[in-house]
Amino acid sequence: MLEDLKQEVYEANMRLPELGLVSFTWGNVSGVDREKGLYVIKPSGVPYDELKASDMVVVNLADGKVVEGDLNPSSDTPTHTYLYNHFPKIGGIVHTHSPWAVSFAAAKMDIPAMNTTHADTFYGDVPAADALTKEEIEADYEGNTGKTIVKTFNERGIDYEAVPAALVSQHGPFSWGPTPDKAVYNAKVLEVVAEEDYHTLQLTRANRELPQYLLDKHYLRKHGANAYYGQNNAKSKEHAARE
Amino acid sequence: MLEDLKQEVYEANMRLPELGLVSFTWGNVSGVDREKGLYVIKPSGVPYDELKASDMVVVNLADGKVVEGDLNPSSDTPTHTYLYNHFPKIGGIVHTHSPWAVSFAAAKMDIPAMNTTHADTFYGDVPAADALTKEEIEADYEGNTGKTIVKTFNERGIDYEAVPAALVSQHGPFSWGPTPDKAVYNAKVLEVVAEEDYHTLQLTRANRELPQYLLDKHYLRKHGANAYYGQNNAKSKEHAARE
Amino acid sequence: MLEDLKQEVYEANMRLPELGLVSFTWGNVSGVDREKGLYVIKPSGVPYDELKASDMVVVNLADGKVVEGDLNPSSDTPTHTYLYNHFPKIGGIVHTHSPWAVSFAAAKMDIPAMNTTHADTFYGDVPAADALTKEEIEADYEGNTGKTIVKTFNERGIDYEAVPAALVSQHGPFSWGPTPDKAVYNAKVLEVVAEEDYHTLQLTRANRELPQYLLDKHYLRKHGANAYYGQNNAKSKEHAARE
Amino acid sequence: MLEDLKQEVYEANMRLPELGLVSFTWGNVSGVDREKGLYVIKPSGVPYDELKASDMVVVNLADGKVVEGDLNPSSDTPTHTYLYNHFPKIGGIVHTHSPWAVSFAAAKMDIPAMNTTHADTFYGDVPAADALTKEEIEADYEGNTGKTIVKTFNERGIDYEAVPAALVSQHGPFSWGPTPDKAVYNAKVLEVVAEEDYHTLQLTRANRELPQYLLDKHYLRKHGANAYYGQNNAKSKEHAARE
Repeated sequence: MLEDLKQEVYEANMRLPELGLVSFTWGNVSGVDREKGLYVIKPSGVPYDELKASDMVVVNLADGKVVEGDLNPSSDTPTHTYLYNHFPKIGGIVHTHSPWAVSFAAAKMDIPAMNTTHADTFYGDVPAADALTKEEIEADYEGNTGKTIVKTFNERGIDYEAVPAALVSQHGPFSWGPTPDKAVYNAKVLEVVAEEDYHTLQLTRANRELPQYLLDKHYLRKHGANAYYGQNNAKSKEHAARE
Repeated sequence: MLEDLKQEVYEANMRLPELGLVSFTWGNVSGVDREKGLYVIKPSGVPYDELKASDMVVVNLADGKVVEGDLNPSSDTPTHTYLYNHFPKIGGIVHTHSPWAVSFAAAKMDIPAMNTTHADTFYGDVPAADALTKEEIEADYEGNTGKTIVKTFNERGIDYEAVPAALVSQHGPFSWGPTPDKAVYNAKVLEVVAEEDYHTLQLTRANRELPQYLLDKHYLRKHGANAYYGQNNAKSKEHAARE
Repeated sequence: MLEDLKQEVYEANMRLPELGLVSFTWGNVSGVDREKGLYVIKPSGVPYDELKASDMVVVNLADGKVVEGDLNPSSDTPTHTYLYNHFPKIGGIVHTHSPWAVSFAAAKMDIPAMNTTHADTFYGDVPAADALTKEEIEADYEGNTGKTIVKTFNERGIDYEAVPAALVSQHGPFSWGPTPDKAVYNAKVLEVVAEEDYHTLQLTRANRELPQYLLDKHYLRKHGANAYYGQNNAKSKEHAARE
Repeated sequence: MLEDLKQEVYEANMRLPELGLVSFTWGNVSGVDREKGLYVIKPSGVPYDELKASDMVVVNLADGKVVEGDLNPSSDTPTHTYLYNHFPKIGGIVHTHSPWAVSFAAAKMDIPAMNTTHADTFYGDVPAADALTKEEIEADYEGNTGKTIVKTFNERGIDYEAVPAALVSQHGPFSWGPTPDKAVYNAKVLEVVAEEDYHTLQLTRANRELPQYLLDKHYLRKHGANAYYGQNNAKSKEHAARE
């Protein structure tokens, strides 16, 4: 069942330790098949060096229930379910505890758009969603983790396709994208720009947010109808890499 | 004598350089056999690449004297003896000079509970125990190093099973756990959260300690009767990993 | 066509990930043949582990148009064209998003000459060129990126051979040198001294710029007619390495 | 000539990149034969991956002139000569541009004794020697680099055997020891404690210098007649490692 997607999600999970985004097993990736109404996610607490593609768990998109799999799915499964249902164009989701992003999440601070590395991937600040209230935590912690992200994007009018990541305050980063692989790429870019922003903020507390026209230039030369990066003939295709 | 435990303690020691927790030979791990009243500890000053399981030294829990072994035990042996005798439920102890934890120890600052990575392992701040007085240092330095840790936990009412680590001010970290391997895991988590806390504290000096209900949620979904992490049927079992 | 130069430029590009200067494909190197009026540059968006010497693109120095190559050249090609035409003695150019240099660029701060590691390679501060205006970005972003660098060197009276690097504010570092390989070397030195300067600036905000006579001593014992470093008989030759 | 010492100095040089203390060729190690009045030093500007034991250059201790060797000696040779002649009990010297030590040197700040990792190797603050004056630089730069170190130790009454390292302000670290290998060990410890001190100083500006009695305890349990570390029968022997 969904063997290709399992393989894709498995490989995306394995990239997390390769990219230095996880210690131990502190991360998970999922990928969705919208037509079948199913998604595939890493099992809970299995070390990366023991993980197999066949361990991936299949979950029903509509109700978040396990459809296939011998192992328990990630305990963050309700967060993934919520995000897939409220961000209808995403194909993959990543959660990590990568340390620079966690440092900003703990500070309850956005990762501001302060350089073009950021603008190439994120079309504006990556928001720090509100920490959950006591009631939200006790009622449905993991589901409400998805909810605070979606609420933040709605309230602040952020386009989730153009800013494919968020921090959950006091907790850590989530990222997403059209595929699991792109979601992992976005998780890595987030970690890189978090580190850079941290250092920039220590060098100066002057306002160093990018002007809108520079954000426009860098984001739009890589994304959308007028993109001119990379080797694809179809300019509107998104490219995983930039030079 | 205690060959299995020697092997287990040896392997735990070898994980310290693998996890980036030690330079040179600056660390030691021990493991206890409570029934026999003996524990096994790394010898003093032997480089990791020369270390063998058979080099491990067996120590009497009651008086801290060497029972078996051709080599001198770690000079921190009296600290291990003290901790085993005053924290009766622990099975393994780790001491390192890991640099982020040392930086907090030198500052005489607790490692505060500021994110969920912390809360998954430590159910509250990791305390900085008082530095030893001149008298304590001169009378019994290594023994009193254990004593200041135990005193701090008692005075501040901290449960040593729920917060399985401490800093000794001006010196460095100690951690423990039900097994030597878990104690090493806790040493690594401590180093990770020390690094994250450092950066969070530079980003903001606003109070970013976790509220109790978030500490409860994260700690208790992994520990105790209602834990729901990982793959074990017995929910009350502790899991080394989290997703 | 220009097979030797393609190989040289290819090898210089491959050193960027080896030296830790790029994540993904975020960097490019070019090298020029002044006699033929052509230069060779990395193609756009090709991952380093798939890159081949034969992928290198040949560009006309006079008008920046592609002369040979199946792939699109780096989208930063107009920057390279501008720099080669205005810095007539350079033989190679490097652009990266190396994180310490980016942190200074985002802060719009020069990388000041604060230690002898800096003075061995850069004969003064590495300037942060002005960020581009809205008009400059919209008219010719990549070309004007070269223009702001050249303008900064002219206005501040900096010798581009003696200070072979610049930051573009809000964006990142460019470096150059007599060969592509030397330009890569300069990119790495820039990243190292950016990291060191960052830490020095956090330790003290006292003025710690090097005095001119120390700059003179270190720069001139390695460069120019009276250099006495390394193993070459011809003292005036530049040496890639220092002891 | 001095083949064993050449091999020993060669191996000590090769440890510098292994321990992460040098980029490129920015470091050198020497070792002395006091009886013969000769010392052996790395040649100038030779990359580590091309270096051979037979490349080592033999220098006369009395006048600093080359006695044997086809290659130019390190350009820092006059510094080594000065230090050997004024610190008569040392057997090896190391110079690097290791980045944390350089950051303190550029700030003209001592590396203070703030934790026991420091006290195990350095019996007090590692001093930042005065930067050289214009006259000193122009007259004999490398020789006067040795002189400012010795002057600092004399003026501040520091025992060079008990504090086997110094910073030269605006430049970088030098370390030494009874053997070349011990001098390399001391260079690494210096870099580690520089990093730790940096972070401690950012966490608090309260005075966190170690009290004398803690310095005494840690330094003297490893050095001198009453040392009790490691495996040697002769307690007074110095041990390279600590547990």
